Amino acid sequence: VSADLAEGVRRGDPRAVARALTWVENGTEEGAALLRALGGRARAAHRVGVTGPPGAGKSTLVSALAGLWRAAGRKVGILAVDPSSPFTGGALLGDRIRMGAHAGDPSVFIRSLATRGALGGLAPGVDDAADVLEVAGFDPVVVETVGVGQGEVEIAKAADTTVVVLAPGAGDEIQGMKAGLLEVADLIVVNQADREGAHRLLASLEAALGLSARKAPPILRTVATTGAGVDDLRERIDARADGARAEVAERRRARARGRVRAEVDRRRAKDFWSGRDQALDEAARAVAEGRATVAEAAERFREGMP
Amino acid sequence: VSADLAEGVRRGDPRAVARALTWVENGTEEGAALLRALGGRARAAHRVGVTGPPGAGKSTLVSALAGLWRAAGRKVGILAVDPSSPFTGGALLGDRIRMGAHAGDPSVFIRSLATRGALGGLAPGVDDAADVLEVAGFDPVVVETVGVGQGEVEIAKAADTTVVVLAPGAGDEIQGMKAGLLEVADLIVVNQADREGAHRLLASLEAALGLSARKAPPILRTVATTGAGVDDLRERIDARADGARAEVAERRRARARGRVRAEVDRRRAKDFWSGRDQALDEAARAVAEGRATVAEAAERFREGMP
Repeated sequence: VSADLAEGVRRGDPRAVARALTWVENGTEEGAALLRALGGRARAAHRVGVTGPPGAGKSTLVSALAGLWRAAGRKVGILAVDPSSPFTGGALLGDRIRMGAHAGDPSVFIRSLATRGALGGLAPGVDDAADVLEVAGFDPVVVETVGVGQGEVEIAKAADTTVVVLAPGAGDEIQGMKAGLLEVADLIVVNQADREGAHRLLASLEAALGLSARKAPPILRTVATTGAGVDDLRERIDARADGARAEVAERRRARARGRVRAEVDRRRAKDFWSGRDQALDEAARAVAEGRATVAEAAERFREGMP
Repeated sequence: VSADLAEGVRRGDPRAVARALTWVENGTEEGAALLRALGGRARAAHRVGVTGPPGAGKSTLVSALAGLWRAAGRKVGILAVDPSSPFTGGALLGDRIRMGAHAGDPSVFIRSLATRGALGGLAPGVDDAADVLEVAGFDPVVVETVGVGQGEVEIAKAADTTVVVLAPGAGDEIQGMKAGLLEVADLIVVNQADREGAHRLLASLEAALGLSARKAPPILRTVATTGAGVDDLRERIDARADGARAEVAERRRARARGRVRAEVDRRRAKDFWSGRDQALDEAARAVAEGRATVAEAAERFREGMP
């Protein structure tokens, strides 16, 4: 079954791609078998991370970029990582609805992914899903996330090129958030650049970048709703695929390192805790009732024990 | 040294508390020794999580609540979890500055914590820091986070009572975000309830809660800047400490379970990867160059191998 599905993905059959993404996202054995069937050979799709605070217009900008890439004859994969409910585990449809402009175009593949559980972050589901889109011939593969908290770190790991989108007045309650975002940016976009406050945002960005030790990334201005500046952004993104090969290769190695390590840790933890449910419950009760510290309870779980 | 420091924390000495939090936050051996010295006995502080999108006025609301608890003679601990830079690792000062009203009051202890690394989330640093404040006599201990993405899941795990703060127009770009937030809420606050759009927000909240399978949490209205409604909120929070004992005990067991498991996983991973740097580099190169899938590379790392 996974060999057939892999063949469908290689042909770029949308239904095969959709099914493959579901398998891979669920992290099942079938998904792992599929990834093996797809093979590990080197792939070329440019992975573009787009992050920024809520309200900066990321989805509208990604949709506008997708239109330009389509016009250039490219197939565009878009993974929208939505905050998921801890209880339903379901992904949400907001971004898909927003992308209505590309509905029915088989060369723009949009998928909302849930972030999985506390340790989920973006990995491993998003990287695997991006692999599937790559094999299916989508290039670039865009990963859009909300960049608040962990988001920006994770997206920087998952992307060859990270675009940070800001807008006047959007999500800048906590000034410091921007600092973390700026440090992972390969390109900075001030979207809604026609709005009041855009000049102040630009000035504060330039001041913040001036203080930073690293080489400042370019700042571009866009108005995603009208398309102004978006083609310049597309050119800059595409130029990185050609111009920053060594850096991209280094990032891919670092990303592969993190993925292998996380996968090994996941498997070892799964093996270890299998059959230790009751021992863990007892340890938890001891901690909750004040009879042991977390460290003391953890100490008792050595290999083979208890 | 940790015995002396533990004694200082038990007396509630602010300098000892500050130092203890630094040890604990850094996750050092000293921090672990301190937590052991503080002991694992059952503690009573009510842990209150406050979360919501950027711009909802969480810090202002927490500051107003702190004023009311102070007036009632209680010592208030506040942990503000800021998004941290992946490169500097530093915590940011935004919230501390915003809490200026309580500067110099030793009975209001405010600390900004960094989230640590990709797998950090809130655990384990925040739970440990809350333990320290509890021993030092702070009750309640308030944990404030930005509730976008992982935040809401994590805070629900770390809190006895979770307060979700929303405001008209703040951070509601992605409708679905609210769904995840609402599911973890014990209390919902519409802050800035005097603003335009508050009625619409209330109506959409009631509609969303009506669709949910679980019992709807109460919705309160506040204007944190003037203090309107904040005393009612404080009463509701305090009432939960008395009224929801069984539920709180169950949450504490679940939290202890997660903490023990994460600590065991962390120790086992640390042991396992020690001395395997080169093997991991080689595996990463094979994946990056397309000679193996992540699953295949992970497969090769069995106990004692390679």
